[in-house]
Amino acid sequence: MKLGRLNHVGVATPSIAGSIDFYRDVMGATAIGAPFDLPAQGVKVCFVDTPNTQIELIEPYDDSSPIAGYLRANPGGGQHHVCYEVPDILAAKAWFEERGRRVLGEPRIGAHGTPIFFVHPKDMGGVLTEIMETPGETH
Amino acid sequence: MKLGRLNHVGVATPSIAGSIDFYRDVMGATAIGAPFDLPAQGVKVCFVDTPNTQIELIEPYDDSSPIAGYLRANPGGGQHHVCYEVPDILAAKAWFEERGRRVLGEPRIGAHGTPIFFVHPKDMGGVLTEIMETPGETH
Repeated sequence: MKLGRLNHVGVATPSIAGSIDFYRDVMGATAIGAPFDLPAQGVKVCFVDTPNTQIELIEPYDDSSPIAGYLRANPGGGQHHVCYEVPDILAAKAWFEERGRRVLGEPRIGAHGTPIFFVHPKDMGGVLTEIMETPGETH
Repeated sequence: MKLGRLNHVGVATPSIAGSIDFYRDVMGATAIGAPFDLPAQGVKVCFVDTPNTQIELIEPYDDSSPIAGYLRANPGGGQHHVCYEVPDILAAKAWFEERGRRVLGEPRIGAHGTPIFFVHPKDMGGVLTEIMETPGETH
């Protein structure tokens, strides 16, 4: 496997609305997508474009959200994960598993509409890592 | 100010040598720079290229390193900061200060040889943020 594009940095926030204000007014972002719900992942999502990658703002969808615990520990929000693109999600899953990395669940459709999975941070140098099939790739 | 390129994601590690093995063998990185010391910042540094940005591996230079505390709390390492490029470091410092963000110290020369500063994570949605003058910009 070859290291792919950094598709986005995932940033947890208690309020996507507040974070949109911050990225627009303080960071100077000019391309901010419309927030949307991803209930199957337990998050609300909003993408902020930088010239070369994106910031994915994620807010808990409800109290059972996987990031609710993160926000209890970090009430102001913070860096949550990084996401790399791969050409083939199933080949990537096999690659990581063959190298003893814990893939968290089966591939599922992510915020960009292509299959994704997460790899356990303790197997990834402390970095919660999302692996995402590049949009537009076909097999 | 307009949001600039994400120059890198800073990842703290207890061992740059171990992280190089990880990024090469597990993540599939093919362009990994030579590690070097940045004693003024209290870190050893190594850049790993992705197709669109970089991962900056940082290891404490000694026990007084600003990231030694981070590693005591996160012994396996983890996401430490993000770094955005700006065309003019002094204009960027004034911009953030005018918006009530705490700039941590004066601009100083960073790992890419251009001036940088950090902004307090509590003023930045929980994200420790490095601001870096784009290499090659002139004033």
